[in-house]
Amino acid sequence: MPQDYNGFEYFNVTFPSEYVAQVEVDRPKKLNAFTEAMFHSIGSIFDRLSHDPDVRVIILSGNGDRAFTAGLDVQAASEGGNISNKDITDVARKATRIRRHIQEIQDCVTAIEKCEKPVIVVMHGISYGLGIDMASCCDIRICAKDTRFSVREVEIGLAADVGTLSRLPNSGVSMSFVKDVALTARDFSAQEALQVGFVSGVYDDKKAAVGRALELGTLIAKKSPVAVQATKDVINFSRDHTVADGLTYVKVLNSSMVQTKDVEDSMLAGIKKTKPTFAKL
Amino acid sequence: MPQDYNGFEYFNVTFPSEYVAQVEVDRPKKLNAFTEAMFHSIGSIFDRLSHDPDVRVIILSGNGDRAFTAGLDVQAASEGGNISNKDITDVARKATRIRRHIQEIQDCVTAIEKCEKPVIVVMHGISYGLGIDMASCCDIRICAKDTRFSVREVEIGLAADVGTLSRLPNSGVSMSFVKDVALTARDFSAQEALQVGFVSGVYDDKKAAVGRALELGTLIAKKSPVAVQATKDVINFSRDHTVADGLTYVKVLNSSMVQTKDVEDSMLAGIKKTKPTFAKL
Amino acid sequence: MPQDYNGFEYFNVTFPSEYVAQVEVDRPKKLNAFTEAMFHSIGSIFDRLSHDPDVRVIILSGNGDRAFTAGLDVQAASEGGNISNKDITDVARKATRIRRHIQEIQDCVTAIEKCEKPVIVVMHGISYGLGIDMASCCDIRICAKDTRFSVREVEIGLAADVGTLSRLPNSGVSMSFVKDVALTARDFSAQEALQVGFVSGVYDDKKAAVGRALELGTLIAKKSPVAVQATKDVINFSRDHTVADGLTYVKVLNSSMVQTKDVEDSMLAGIKKTKPTFAKL
Amino acid sequence: MPQDYNGFEYFNVTFPSEYVAQVEVDRPKKLNAFTEAMFHSIGSIFDRLSHDPDVRVIILSGNGDRAFTAGLDVQAASEGGNISNKDITDVARKATRIRRHIQEIQDCVTAIEKCEKPVIVVMHGISYGLGIDMASCCDIRICAKDTRFSVREVEIGLAADVGTLSRLPNSGVSMSFVKDVALTARDFSAQEALQVGFVSGVYDDKKAAVGRALELGTLIAKKSPVAVQATKDVINFSRDHTVADGLTYVKVLNSSMVQTKDVEDSMLAGIKKTKPTFAKL
Amino acid sequence: MPQDYNGFEYFNVTFPSEYVAQVEVDRPKKLNAFTEAMFHSIGSIFDRLSHDPDVRVIILSGNGDRAFTAGLDVQAASEGGNISNKDITDVARKATRIRRHIQEIQDCVTAIEKCEKPVIVVMHGISYGLGIDMASCCDIRICAKDTRFSVREVEIGLAADVGTLSRLPNSGVSMSFVKDVALTARDFSAQEALQVGFVSGVYDDKKAAVGRALELGTLIAKKSPVAVQATKDVINFSRDHTVADGLTYVKVLNSSMVQTKDVEDSMLAGIKKTKPTFAKL
Amino acid sequence: MPQDYNGFEYFNVTFPSEYVAQVEVDRPKKLNAFTEAMFHSIGSIFDRLSHDPDVRVIILSGNGDRAFTAGLDVQAASEGGNISNKDITDVARKATRIRRHIQEIQDCVTAIEKCEKPVIVVMHGISYGLGIDMASCCDIRICAKDTRFSVREVEIGLAADVGTLSRLPNSGVSMSFVKDVALTARDFSAQEALQVGFVSGVYDDKKAAVGRALELGTLIAKKSPVAVQATKDVINFSRDHTVADGLTYVKVLNSSMVQTKDVEDSMLAGIKKTKPTFAKL
Repeated sequence: MPQDYNGFEYFNVTFPSEYVAQVEVDRPKKLNAFTEAMFHSIGSIFDRLSHDPDVRVIILSGNGDRAFTAGLDVQAASEGGNISNKDITDVARKATRIRRHIQEIQDCVTAIEKCEKPVIVVMHGISYGLGIDMASCCDIRICAKDTRFSVREVEIGLAADVGTLSRLPNSGVSMSFVKDVALTARDFSAQEALQVGFVSGVYDDKKAAVGRALELGTLIAKKSPVAVQATKDVINFSRDHTVADGLTYVKVLNSSMVQTKDVEDSMLAGIKKTKPTFAKL
Repeated sequence: MPQDYNGFEYFNVTFPSEYVAQVEVDRPKKLNAFTEAMFHSIGSIFDRLSHDPDVRVIILSGNGDRAFTAGLDVQAASEGGNISNKDITDVARKATRIRRHIQEIQDCVTAIEKCEKPVIVVMHGISYGLGIDMASCCDIRICAKDTRFSVREVEIGLAADVGTLSRLPNSGVSMSFVKDVALTARDFSAQEALQVGFVSGVYDDKKAAVGRALELGTLIAKKSPVAVQATKDVINFSRDHTVADGLTYVKVLNSSMVQTKDVEDSMLAGIKKTKPTFAKL
Repeated sequence: MPQDYNGFEYFNVTFPSEYVAQVEVDRPKKLNAFTEAMFHSIGSIFDRLSHDPDVRVIILSGNGDRAFTAGLDVQAASEGGNISNKDITDVARKATRIRRHIQEIQDCVTAIEKCEKPVIVVMHGISYGLGIDMASCCDIRICAKDTRFSVREVEIGLAADVGTLSRLPNSGVSMSFVKDVALTARDFSAQEALQVGFVSGVYDDKKAAVGRALELGTLIAKKSPVAVQATKDVINFSRDHTVADGLTYVKVLNSSMVQTKDVEDSMLAGIKKTKPTFAKL
Repeated sequence: MPQDYNGFEYFNVTFPSEYVAQVEVDRPKKLNAFTEAMFHSIGSIFDRLSHDPDVRVIILSGNGDRAFTAGLDVQAASEGGNISNKDITDVARKATRIRRHIQEIQDCVTAIEKCEKPVIVVMHGISYGLGIDMASCCDIRICAKDTRFSVREVEIGLAADVGTLSRLPNSGVSMSFVKDVALTARDFSAQEALQVGFVSGVYDDKKAAVGRALELGTLIAKKSPVAVQATKDVINFSRDHTVADGLTYVKVLNSSMVQTKDVEDSMLAGIKKTKPTFAKL
Repeated sequence: MPQDYNGFEYFNVTFPSEYVAQVEVDRPKKLNAFTEAMFHSIGSIFDRLSHDPDVRVIILSGNGDRAFTAGLDVQAASEGGNISNKDITDVARKATRIRRHIQEIQDCVTAIEKCEKPVIVVMHGISYGLGIDMASCCDIRICAKDTRFSVREVEIGLAADVGTLSRLPNSGVSMSFVKDVALTARDFSAQEALQVGFVSGVYDDKKAAVGRALELGTLIAKKSPVAVQATKDVINFSRDHTVADGLTYVKVLNSSMVQTKDVEDSMLAGIKKTKPTFAKL
Repeated sequence: MPQDYNGFEYFNVTFPSEYVAQVEVDRPKKLNAFTEAMFHSIGSIFDRLSHDPDVRVIILSGNGDRAFTAGLDVQAASEGGNISNKDITDVARKATRIRRHIQEIQDCVTAIEKCEKPVIVVMHGISYGLGIDMASCCDIRICAKDTRFSVREVEIGLAADVGTLSRLPNSGVSMSFVKDVALTARDFSAQEALQVGFVSGVYDDKKAAVGRALELGTLIAKKSPVAVQATKDVINFSRDHTVADGLTYVKVLNSSMVQTKDVEDSMLAGIKKTKPTFAKL
């Protein structure tokens, strides 16, 4: 039985299939827009999922028909005043507060990327701003046909600062496209997202996309979790390092990983055409 | 009123729309091929545009129907003798001269990339050698259907040394494609360029492509220049660094950038559906 | 006359065209699966080709209709016991043996990438596991329509450790796709491989694909080998470094390379419309 | 008034001078050896100090005459069984647990380095293992004459894994010395530590060393905290990056930092020979 | 005959020995403090020396008995108002101006490091702030006994931003010492500077130190300039890269450098005990 | 019983103590100068020692009273003509040959650094050129009082290209000193080498220095080889990476290393004051 993930307002965490968790942003009336508190919640949820032995794959999606997420709840943000800090007038001191605050939010979003288990994101409808930031942290990105993506931040006078601008240029996506959408804040379609490789699958509607995520998730959940988690780890390490360093890393990591019983069990199952069962991780 | 950009032979600089500059290579009789002096001119033009408060976006294009640019003017180069230096016989001393010369030309071309304002390049017709080098420095690449691209340098016995070979492998373009065209020096089409993501848009003809560039440019020019320039800066920084470093960079940069009045004005305009006006930068 | 490449069991090395070598994996009865000894053979072959003055381009392909390669010969591997080392019980000592062994195999495969001459890989039929690892080391990847690719390793309880996971994220291929296929071990098609840029060409069948490789190889073999080899070198260096470092590298390398007579000969041939002949390298 | 730092067993946090905090490891009967819980405590203490506006400098020292710290409490560790995990037999799963555990402890120790305020460590008597790890995270290292240092870990069959081996090679200390002491686990003296630059001051006894730390701390606490914290930040960033990246970083950071009133106040105080007062940070 | 270096106010450039240039900061009445204009002058001087074939080594020193340099002329700086920009109120726009200004000054100072010829700095008397920044760019640092060094910037509310904080942590100097002096802004002596390796020689007085610089300069000027300049280049490259990258760099650089006649001439001179003469570079 | 190391001309390999090997350069009549063949020999010897389970520490020294090594045998080199290649006239082709040759020699010397077991070098008398290159690869450097060191290469018209210029700037040695000795090729003394941290011990004469090396070697040989070799590995990795990467590396490495029985045995021996025995590695 997975751990308890109740008590996070605006998030549903369910377990649609063995070893598969689904995290749903659940604030449909506000187009699943994020408040300050929600950032901390999603960080905590993924930190917990990362080490939960009953979880091997995670699906991230949004509740409701209209939006994966509209991004930051700008109105709430402007009222909360976390950034504006009108009481501080010294520019450097204000900047220090802002740095700390950005760091905090970045850490929450990065928790999705650091989660040891693969994360499949399903986007649909409005997928703006933070929606792109979060999706950039996920391992596999698929979407519904109706998705309207936008790197929204310049529209509100900001360079996106919780990950999109750092992760997209390192994700095998055409840089001309990345700059086009980041500099104009224009909407782009599922078709365009597929063409440039931001997503690796487009499905007829949200339901079909979630269905495909579940298929992928179930497929991954049946593999050795040792192999799966090491694979995610090595790919993420390699993205940020030279090929030589990547080779060194996988060599050192595998020096213990291949001592697992899962290798033998997997091979045997392959030969015998049986379904192997793997211990939790 | 923008600064004065007259006096650069073979370049037209115009201002087709508010805050939008257009730099046109203007040597159509020679297919816009580059002489030594033109390298220095284009470097100077972009250095100046970078800090010109009346400029927020730049379009780079070529005059005439036949070519964006045929690249280096090989004949002029061979006559100028800048590289050949027949008077020096010592290999090491000759190599030192060559190193200094390459550095000089690289700096001129890199000025396009270092320009703080986004640069949209419009390619058409023959777009060879240096044309690819320059386009690789630009932020958004679009082209006309008739464009014939070629990483031309091996054809003249050279590895391209002013940027193509270093920038393409870091631009989200298929490496198999990059090597294919760089090792064979073969022509490739607009369609192929779009498919691999070297360009992010193909238009019917040069006029349509320039029109689209102007649309994009105008769209960007209406956004907060603080947000736009920071976005370009962060993406370029992130291309060359780990994701962790990119996050640190945007955090520190935004600690002053988000203190701009543009954020408030942008948000307000968003709510009130008005068009914000931003101070120069 | 090229050097002698006989004596490597399960490999044919032929010379279908001037300066073009073809390395064929030749164990069709076992779907060209690799034994331990074959790793060392392929490493040795590419080390030798790298400095062979009679070779300027290499084509890598598989014999038989059914497979480029099925990857590691799992049965042979499990019998050889190289990794299992049942005699050692101390985990750290076993891990050290494994590290050394992975390093050895990695070095063999990396020899393909380090080969100074461009390598064109032609895939067809089953192209699994090690097939992807080797292809990732090649410069130009093309395939037949019938190719069935798979990053196979998680299927046998392993994170791939001879290069795929380190090279794919740095090859301009959509990261969402990379993780999708690496985490699920699912088959993917030639069409999908082309769409994401893993291959840069798909041909009707193996014969057509080999034919195209030969065309490309012959084209490259006619260019200055100085220019071609420097181009490969700079692109590979640039993949692993910042753009600034890439520019420095090509500058230093070209300070001797452009002193070659090939530049003059190439330019002259271009003007005179003749075919230049270049000295061996 | 600084925040409350009571409630951390085995640590005293006092405020010997305005804006100066002193963290004392307080388990003298066990030579200030660290239990698992103490790691988490010291991490929490430094996280809190980092943002405490009433703190500008921190002194880290050990209670009692005999030891700064004897390092890990090996006996407690072996009983706690956190690493041994005898219930898990699969090597890979055990390795995963160990990785997570090391990460946790590393994060606790790294909190000292990440603390935004400068940390001065005072070592005396036995300063073994973890004592070196923690000192390596501190900004200024001084010690008493009687200090006996040892990179102790090989003595217990381990490569040190909470920082010493990663930080010492990047601290301007002779690598020959670093390897000598890390490979032999031999004791080294205050004199040797000073000679190679591991410490920057040796004092007659613990009292004198703490006195000097207080002098240094008081001196730093009187400077602009904006300037002091930015200085620490830039030096740490620069240690891990190229000089070019370090210059970029300080440029971006200072673009907000120099807008502080502290610059004006510092300059004015310098001219008027008065003592400036700076707002909290 | 070297080029003309007149016309730079507050700088004397002389040629005390064959191939040896001496750049003297010459504003003794103001303790050789730097105005804005002087930054640009020193940048231009070193840019010119870098390619001057009659120069092989450069000595940098200060005129007068009291100071190498007191650093930035704070009074002039505060009047010039280059940074304060009181007319701009938007924090982000002000920050942008500051960034550009710091970049400009950094480039001037970095010109000393980028100069292809070795630079020997002789410090004496007051050597504050910018004096440390400039010295950090030089290759060999020696000083007079009476030198009073200070990383001065925190004293005026600033983190040093033209190089000290980025170069010192990469110069083989004890990090504990670097942070001690950078965080306290305290004076340190020639003896301490020698002990930690910031300087590699201390001489009785300025005259003796300049004499030693001249000896070293003359010695270096007699070696092959190809060998000397390549040596400087490789060491600087290696400081910022891994050992593997450093080895690659020297390999590529030397592939042309060792083709110089200087190698043969040097070897022959060694055998025949004669003094070789080398062509200019 | 260690493996057989006979058959390498000019090298003696002996085993003065359990698990301790001593490699002696043995060409005293030529001041232990290196011929081409000797480079390959030393590379092979260290490759073999690296995996020899009967070896845990290696001492590298020179036979005879007069020299550790005079460096490259210049006369032999000039006769061998490996570099000069008078038959090739094309500069680029010659450069390619040179690059390959430097790579080969670098690999031989780097084998000392890559050797998994710690290497202690004992220098005495003349220790020139290659002597510094090899010593820079060793882990612990000690010497006799009479040692005369010289980074000799500029004396023969060369930038040192087998490691000194890349390793010294990353070895915690004063950069001002490194450049002083590398640019002047002057002799420096044991005392100076100790002061800047190039060596970590100076002994009265060669015999005493070898004695100390044997003591150190014996001490290290008694520790867990798992711990010792991991410690060397992590320090070398950390030298070339950020602290964050170093921490990641040791975490992943130790996840298998700490599962060794050596930890338990070491701890137990510590408590029981007995001498632990460790299995071979």
